[in-house]
Parts: sequence; structure tokens; C-alpha cells
Amino acid sequence: MNNTTIQQLPKNITILGSTGSIGTQALEVVRDNPAIFKVSVLSALKNSELLIQQAKEFKPETVVICDETQYRYVKDALSSLDIQVLAGEAALTEVAAYPQSDIVLTALMGSVGLKPTIAAIKAGKNIALANKETLVVAGEYITELARQHQVKILPVDSEHSAIFQCLVGEEQNEIEKIYLTASGGPFLSKDKSFLASVKKEQALKHPNWVMGAKITIDSASLMNKGLEVIEAKWLFDLNVDQIDVIVHPQSIIHSIVQFTDGSMKAQMGVPDMKLPIQYALNYPDRLKNDFKRFNFLDYPTFSFQQADLDTFKNLDLAFQSLRKGGNMPCILNAANEVVVEAFLKDKIGFLQMSDVIEQCMEDISFIEKPQLTDYLETDKHSRILAGELVTKSKV
Amino acid sequence: MNNTTIQQLPKNITILGSTGSIGTQALEVVRDNPAIFKVSVLSALKNSELLIQQAKEFKPETVVICDETQYRYVKDALSSLDIQVLAGEAALTEVAAYPQSDIVLTALMGSVGLKPTIAAIKAGKNIALANKETLVVAGEYITELARQHQVKILPVDSEHSAIFQCLVGEEQNEIEKIYLTASGGPFLSKDKSFLASVKKEQALKHPNWVMGAKITIDSASLMNKGLEVIEAKWLFDLNVDQIDVIVHPQSIIHSIVQFTDGSMKAQMGVPDMKLPIQYALNYPDRLKNDFKRFNFLDYPTFSFQQADLDTFKNLDLAFQSLRKGGNMPCILNAANEVVVEAFLKDKIGFLQMSDVIEQCMEDISFIEKPQLTDYLETDKHSRILAGELVTKSKV
Repeated sequence: MNNTTIQQLPKNITILGSTGSIGTQALEVVRDNPAIFKVSVLSALKNSELLIQQAKEFKPETVVICDETQYRYVKDALSSLDIQVLAGEAALTEVAAYPQSDIVLTALMGSVGLKPTIAAIKAGKNIALANKETLVVAGEYITELARQHQVKILPVDSEHSAIFQCLVGEEQNEIEKIYLTASGGPFLSKDKSFLASVKKEQALKHPNWVMGAKITIDSASLMNKGLEVIEAKWLFDLNVDQIDVIVHPQSIIHSIVQFTDGSMKAQMGVPDMKLPIQYALNYPDRLKNDFKRFNFLDYPTFSFQQADLDTFKNLDLAFQSLRKGGNMPCILNAANEVVVEAFLKDKIGFLQMSDVIEQCMEDISFIEKPQLTDYLETDKHSRILAGELVTKSKV
Repeated sequence: MNNTTIQQLPKNITILGSTGSIGTQALEVVRDNPAIFKVSVLSALKNSELLIQQAKEFKPETVVICDETQYRYVKDALSSLDIQVLAGEAALTEVAAYPQSDIVLTALMGSVGLKPTIAAIKAGKNIALANKETLVVAGEYITELARQHQVKILPVDSEHSAIFQCLVGEEQNEIEKIYLTASGGPFLSKDKSFLASVKKEQALKHPNWVMGAKITIDSASLMNKGLEVIEAKWLFDLNVDQIDVIVHPQSIIHSIVQFTDGSMKAQMGVPDMKLPIQYALNYPDRLKNDFKRFNFLDYPTFSFQQADLDTFKNLDLAFQSLRKGGNMPCILNAANEVVVEAFLKDKIGFLQMSDVIEQCMEDISFIEKPQLTDYLETDKHSRILAGELVTKSKV
């Protein structure tokens, strides 16, 4: 990896999931750098109000509203502007391959990101990947596809961006191991009896990061870290024993690489997702900004502790799924999406989430060498089973 | 900076100062990697016993004993081996330019390293620089000379190696600032009244690093950090306001770069000088080794605090000298060498060291644009004046 690419400016950006946490922050980066970035496509799941507002400000060529019932509303609101309006999830796959776009930011929630990401890669677009589920579900397939199409997958997750930044100018075969840092979330040091009765309101209070609901619950259960472990395996071509997790409640060190000579490099800073977003969008060049700078006097102590895999079983399940390989991470991820949604609707308890996921990992057919269709089938079956298990569960 | 150089193995290494702390650790690295490194030249100030032992093991083409009275002894001891024996400080300058050597490790103590370093650069040798005084005394001259001769100056100091490693693959113009970490030494958090009466035995007990006596005293007085600030200015082409010092008593984070986008990269690990030595000698490739690996469970807390420039005045004086520029850092360094030697001989108190250095900075003629001869003259005058001031002082 080195910095020799010549950039043509402005860079045309497609943002899949522009109304979510990552999407809105990406647009702040674009707003601050009008000479560097231009928005080609914006898409939203169902927040049409915000999508319309964004479209009026950033004037993309196309917007996509996934919820087809809102198509007419969005179309009418933007009728005076020269903006194409599309609707439905399938349109995401269409716009991901649009020729006018240089880079596709996949900030969709969950495994719905898979198909548009595949389309973008096949069209030769670099991917700024905020949708970690894509690599969790089908990491082997996606990374191989990216290699074939000579496409870069640029991580947006702060931990993976940290690893990626630490690897600039280094050799992949000189990585000994990586440490993904984990804040520990709102339930750090709590025991199972405490977790048995926690409610979504408690789980949604992340100490350091402002994020969407799904990822915030995943952070509280450590599943987010588990998904990141799987994501890291594919992004950096590691084996599972090269990946470790260390709890660092201050979230200043975003992750660490240890090299074969024992030297370690850490990327750090104030927790602010705009930094990894900007880094991915403008890679390989850094972009001067006025984001808040880190000050040691604000953080005189960094602390570290081992993750409690017994209490936070999701992280253990994620490691297990990665060791087993095949479609196992796909099962884990699909079941997790179902249980998180159920937890957010008060249909299932915090600890029961792990139970349902584990049951799905036991019951769904294991496929050692899945094809793309196998992933899609596995995803579907795991969701159905998880849904049934949720229904049977008693809160 | 990138990793495209093709290395011819083994690399022939000249070690100036092979019997000191850095020199002996460099030889451990060579011993562990006989297919990678070969020793061409060894030199010692006066430790002829160790020099002879090293010469018998590593079989260099040439050894230099600086103390000419020991020439005959060394010559006789090595008479059965095909090793050239030279004596006297001038011989260092001669061997530094030897054609058979690929890289010169300058592990000499104090400003005596200047002339051999210049000779090595003029002969086109890459420099593994452990002798920070060379850049402190004549940084502008040396870095310009290295640029002209397309020679790399590879830092061996752990802090500068950290910065250097963090900059691999990054652009120099994207550096916003650097933080040099300081352990704080054995007198961290002590006040002036305590320091007024400390003895060399206390100052020689460094909490984290095993080093030579001169640098250990410099660490206790924070002059070492001051010299490193000056060294960093020249190594990384920074202005003084881009360099900050942060006290980090655990010495795990070896230093930090903050980039123009606010992202920071830190290099870290167990304190072990063999790592930066090996990195410099084998740059740009990392070399697998079995050095002790860092374990977060051994260091669950990293702490940080501001350096106390009022109590540890040497660091303040170093910043002042860099702001003033010209021959001022040279005055500071020469006076410091004299006072440290005097402190080690119980001829001067701990706090008086700063007083003498400050007086020299006031009294010696300031030269804004010094030539090489001006540096040598300044060094001489500052030593004379510092010596006089030491004699006048009362312990």
C-alpha cells in the first residue's frame, strides 16, 4: 500500500444509506470539502424527509427510497430539481454500479448491503465499507471478487480504519497479530444476573460513540466486536489466531497492529466517525480538517482489560463461527439481526439473544464451501429459525 | 518512504562505539541474524577487553581503539586473526568511510560522533544514528549533507524510531505535530528541593531503560528529552511548535505522530532498544525475532502527564535553544556534556547542571548561520566555559 495514486477531483460518491449515522456524517465531510467530493447518489431506507432535504442540498443525480410506498412523495418533493428518483431495494443494486460514481460508501444496515456491494465491485468501484455485515456474511466471496476486479475495500469502521492506517507502507506478511480495541460498551464489568434484566434504554446508552440503534445494541452485547473480528479476518487476510480483542474503555486507541519484529503500531484519537469516513473517501491522501484534536490532559489514563467471553457470549460465538468457517458467520449474523430487532421491540431479553444465535448455529445446515446462493439461503433460513425461536422465548 | 529497496545480503555494518550499551545490543542483533548482517568495523573508546572479545567473535575487517595507549595491547591480542587494528579518534573518521561497509551505526557518546558521521555521509553510507548529539550540534548541516549525498539517516533512539515507523507510507507534509513520550525518569514528580540534594546513584536508576551513564543522567534531568526534541526537528523537518513532549511513565508508547486530519499513530511495545536498532539496521524490512512481546495484562494502565518545565529546566532550555537556533543547541549540548561528567564525578549538584548550561547559552557568542567550523569552535568554547563554571560552583 502506498500513496502513489493520482486523484481526479472532485471524487463522485455514491452513499448507500445516507440518512443513517454514517451517511449523515459522510455528508458533513462532503459539505466541508466541496472541491474534493461530489455526491452522485443518495439512498435511504424509509426516512424520506431527510433524504429530500439531503437531495436539495447536495443535488445528486439520483436518489433511491427503498420504501416504495414513499416514492411518489419523494418524487413530488424533488420535481423542480433535475434528480432521478428510484424506489425499492433492487434499485440499490442498480445505482451501486452507476458509471459516474468513483466510490461507493456502503452505509446500509445489515446483510441487505451484500447485493449492492457485489454490484459495485463488479462495476469496478472502490468500496468505502461501513456495512460490516457484507464481509461477515460473505467475506471470502467478496474479497476474492474485489481482488479479481482490482477494487479497493476501504474500511470505515473505526477499528478497521485504525488497522488499515497502521498498515500503510507496511508489508502484509509482516503482520504478527492485531488487537481490536473494544470500549466494553455500557455493560462493561456487569455480570449475567445484571444483564438478564437490562432494557433497551440502558443498552442504547453507549459511553463513547454515537451510532445507530442496531450497532449500539451490538456494542452492548459485544457482538459488534465479534462481527469486527470476522470483518478483520477478511479485510486483512488473517487467520483467527492473529486476531485478539482488548477492552479499552476510553476508546482513544482505535486498534493496534503487532508486527513480526514485535513492534506495534496503534491509531488513536478522539472518537469521531467522521475521521475514518473521510480517510476512506479520500484515501490515500489525508485531508486537513478542524475535527476536535485529542488532548492527553483530557485523557490522562488509558486502561485495558481482557474481554469477558463468558458473560458476553456473543463475542465467543463470533470467534467460534470464524473458526468453523463456511456459512457459520452468515448464520450468526442473520440470527443476530433478528434478535437485535426483537430486543429493540422488547420481545426478547438481553441474554436470550445469545441463546437464539447459538441455537441457530447448531441447527442450520453447515456448508463448508458456500457459493453466493448458499449465503443467501443460509441468511434466509437463519432469519426464519431465529424468528421462531424469538416467538417461543419468554421475556 | 516506502519499502521498495532491494537489499543485498549480508549487510555490512560498521559500528562506531561497539562496547557501549547500543553497540553491544547491536551485536546481539547481528549474532541472532548471521545471514542478514556482517560486521565490517568495530570501534571502542577505551574498553579494549570487550573490543578484543567482540573482534574474536564477529571477525570484522578492522577494529579501532580510540585510546592510543591501548593500541599495542589490542594489536597483540588479535595478531593471529586477519584483522586490521587502528588507534586514535581520527581513525573513526577514516573507517566511517570504508568502502566495504553498507551502513554505519554511530553509537558514540557525545559530539565526538560529528566528524565520523560527516565522513560516512560523504562516502554515501546510510547512517543508523544512535548518537543524537550529531544532530543536536549540527542538525541543519548534517541533514543538508545527507540530502546532497542521498543518504538515509535512520534513527535508533526509540522515540525517533517510533516517529519514523509511524511515518512509513505517510506524507511528510501531512504531519501536524509529534509527541515525544518521556518516562519522566527516576525523579518524576519530585520538586526542586528534592533535586537539589540528589546524588548520582539515584540519578543512575532509570525505571524503564537500561542505558549508558551519560544518557541515564540526561534522562533524569530531562535533557535527554530536550536533545531528542532538537534531534526530531532535524530528522523530520519540523518546526519547534510541531514538537511536544508528554510524560508517559510506563514507556510503552514510544512516541506519536498527529496528522493534519487529526488522526494519530503511535508506535509501542516493551522497552527494548534492540527493536529500534534492528529496525534501523534492516530498514525498510522488518525482521522476525523472539524479543519479548508486549502483553496488555502486564500494563493494564497507561498514564500521561505534562512535563514540568519549571522543575526540569533542562527541557525548557533545550526548547529555548531550538527557538533561538544557530549555534545555540550546540552550546547547550557541549555545556551539558561537561556538567553531566562533572555530576558523575560529584563535582556539581543536580540543579546546578541547568545553571551552568543556561550561563553558557547567555555568554557564548551567538552565531545565527554557523558553518561547520563555527560548530566546532562553539563546542570548544562552551566546554571551556562550562568547565570553568563547574570549578567555581560549590556542591
